Amino acid sequence: MTTDRVTVSDLGERELIERIVARLDAHGEGEILSGDDAAVLAWHSPNMLLTTDLMVERVDFDLAWASGYDIGWKIVAVNASDIAAMGGTPSRAVVTLALSGDTRLDLADEVADGIAAASERFGIVIAGGDVSEGRDLALSLTLVGEPPAGGAVLRSGATVGDVIGVTGPLGGAAVGLIALQGALDEAPFEAAVTRQLRPEARLDAGRALARAGATAMIDLSDGLAVDLGHLTSASGVGCEVSPSDVPVHQAASALAARDPSVDAGEIAITGGEDFELLFTIPPAAVDGARRALEAAGCELFRIGEITASERLIGGRPLEQWRDQAWQHLRPR
Amino acid sequence: MTTDRVTVSDLGERELIERIVARLDAHGEGEILSGDDAAVLAWHSPNMLLTTDLMVERVDFDLAWASGYDIGWKIVAVNASDIAAMGGTPSRAVVTLALSGDTRLDLADEVADGIAAASERFGIVIAGGDVSEGRDLALSLTLVGEPPAGGAVLRSGATVGDVIGVTGPLGGAAVGLIALQGALDEAPFEAAVTRQLRPEARLDAGRALARAGATAMIDLSDGLAVDLGHLTSASGVGCEVSPSDVPVHQAASALAARDPSVDAGEIAITGGEDFELLFTIPPAAVDGARRALEAAGCELFRIGEITASERLIGGRPLEQWRDQAWQHLRPR
Repeated sequence: MTTDRVTVSDLGERELIERIVARLDAHGEGEILSGDDAAVLAWHSPNMLLTTDLMVERVDFDLAWASGYDIGWKIVAVNASDIAAMGGTPSRAVVTLALSGDTRLDLADEVADGIAAASERFGIVIAGGDVSEGRDLALSLTLVGEPPAGGAVLRSGATVGDVIGVTGPLGGAAVGLIALQGALDEAPFEAAVTRQLRPEARLDAGRALARAGATAMIDLSDGLAVDLGHLTSASGVGCEVSPSDVPVHQAASALAARDPSVDAGEIAITGGEDFELLFTIPPAAVDGARRALEAAGCELFRIGEITASERLIGGRPLEQWRDQAWQHLRPR
Repeated sequence: MTTDRVTVSDLGERELIERIVARLDAHGEGEILSGDDAAVLAWHSPNMLLTTDLMVERVDFDLAWASGYDIGWKIVAVNASDIAAMGGTPSRAVVTLALSGDTRLDLADEVADGIAAASERFGIVIAGGDVSEGRDLALSLTLVGEPPAGGAVLRSGATVGDVIGVTGPLGGAAVGLIALQGALDEAPFEAAVTRQLRPEARLDAGRALARAGATAMIDLSDGLAVDLGHLTSASGVGCEVSPSDVPVHQAASALAARDPSVDAGEIAITGGEDFELLFTIPPAAVDGARRALEAAGCELFRIGEITASERLIGGRPLEQWRDQAWQHLRPR
């Protein structure tokens, strides 16, 4: 296959990123560059965490259901979540914003306000940025952070026998997207909408887990089935998760109660953007981690175990979960 | 004027940035955040330089005359140039790329290759990134760098009596843009096209000037008249530049030779994107700086002096230069 007729849409996002990374020849002795939630950079003292995310109109959000404030908040939160997933502390950020000339100034103001509010929430100082014109509203944020004292918690540290845990109920953000698109506005869906539009970054939880001895960690942006795949691949291990132990967000249960075709557990396993942390930890450290997470305002949900080879949720390979129905719950 | 009817195009880019910065409440004790070429971040040791730039199709480049490789190169070079203008050394970067699904994969490959080549040229390691879909091809790069031993050279340090200098002839990149749009392909225009498409970042020169005692520095991205305005405003000083001392790129002279309506000196003063450094330095330090710049492969062109109040080039206010004909030489 010659590349001159292949388009970007012929590749998935991941394949495109891998392709680009290969061309960039990323390397660095003792550093973690692409392939984890954030890059770990050899700096003088301490190392630096560096991460970036890009959100584009209609692909990553829709102005029909997200305000400028929402998307400003979210670009900060998703980056802070990457730092949380290393056990780190966010520090300074720069922002880029592309928008069309006929964009309402109100909208640009709202975006800035959302960025400012989330930055204050997560202890981030915006250090600069750049703007340009484009037909699509697009914003990116690059965040510098500091790793925890014991070093960043990578995706690659899980070992056989480790317990697999998550910091909160799952599926809420995915149901929030359904609610936004379908205008469901009862109480349980309101909480889900907030999860989708104004995610939290589990910074206290991430630091607590780093101190408590977590061996590997990732934030749940693409959904449990996909992100557990990233973690186990990076660690070169398998897993067995018990579906009945995966905590289900109340909005997913509420949706299942009104629509019998909906499986709440499946939403929890495959829905994206909850931004809870998925982590592994030796069995002996679980009790300490549980107490530390409770002090951080979260819970420790034990959902499975790291195994030697196969990657399974309820006996079914992760790939099967990935490919099934709830894919469409994610904006992309 | 209520803001709900005002569009982004009613404001200039600068006004929009100022508006956003005001809303972000950027602050930091002992730090330089927005308002200079790069942010200076209080880090443990040493401080960190952080800068970002965004380039969008049709606004910042045109695929009718720029290849993917060119734009990949340029997004790295313009960021590296910001670090050069602080006297610093670039280190690590992250990239974002928005492109439409029907983008030729070849083009994405070329962008990555251009980024990789420029990163190697300027000593940068790409540490990660993010991609998404958008109708416009848009790329941003955020670059972390290290300040020089004596601290970053800011825009704000010029004092009355300082000599004003530049590191190379000006107007080449602007003529390069004319050549690209008009398909001029004789020899002097080829060099100008290279300046426009594959700019250098004056890193050795920037470090040399920092060591030699430069008091203020900025890279020439918007053109001498505009960037000198930034530097003198930040320093709270005036200036008097002698137009006949401003070095003119040979391509501007060649263009003037074939078209009597063209004033080569005016192109040098108002044309953007040469990415030479504009600096101020005490008279006693000029000879040392000249030798240091020659060792760095540049020249020291002495073009004027810092004064107490008025900001003049050839007796005319900078604003008059800014507003005149050669504005259209810049992509925006």
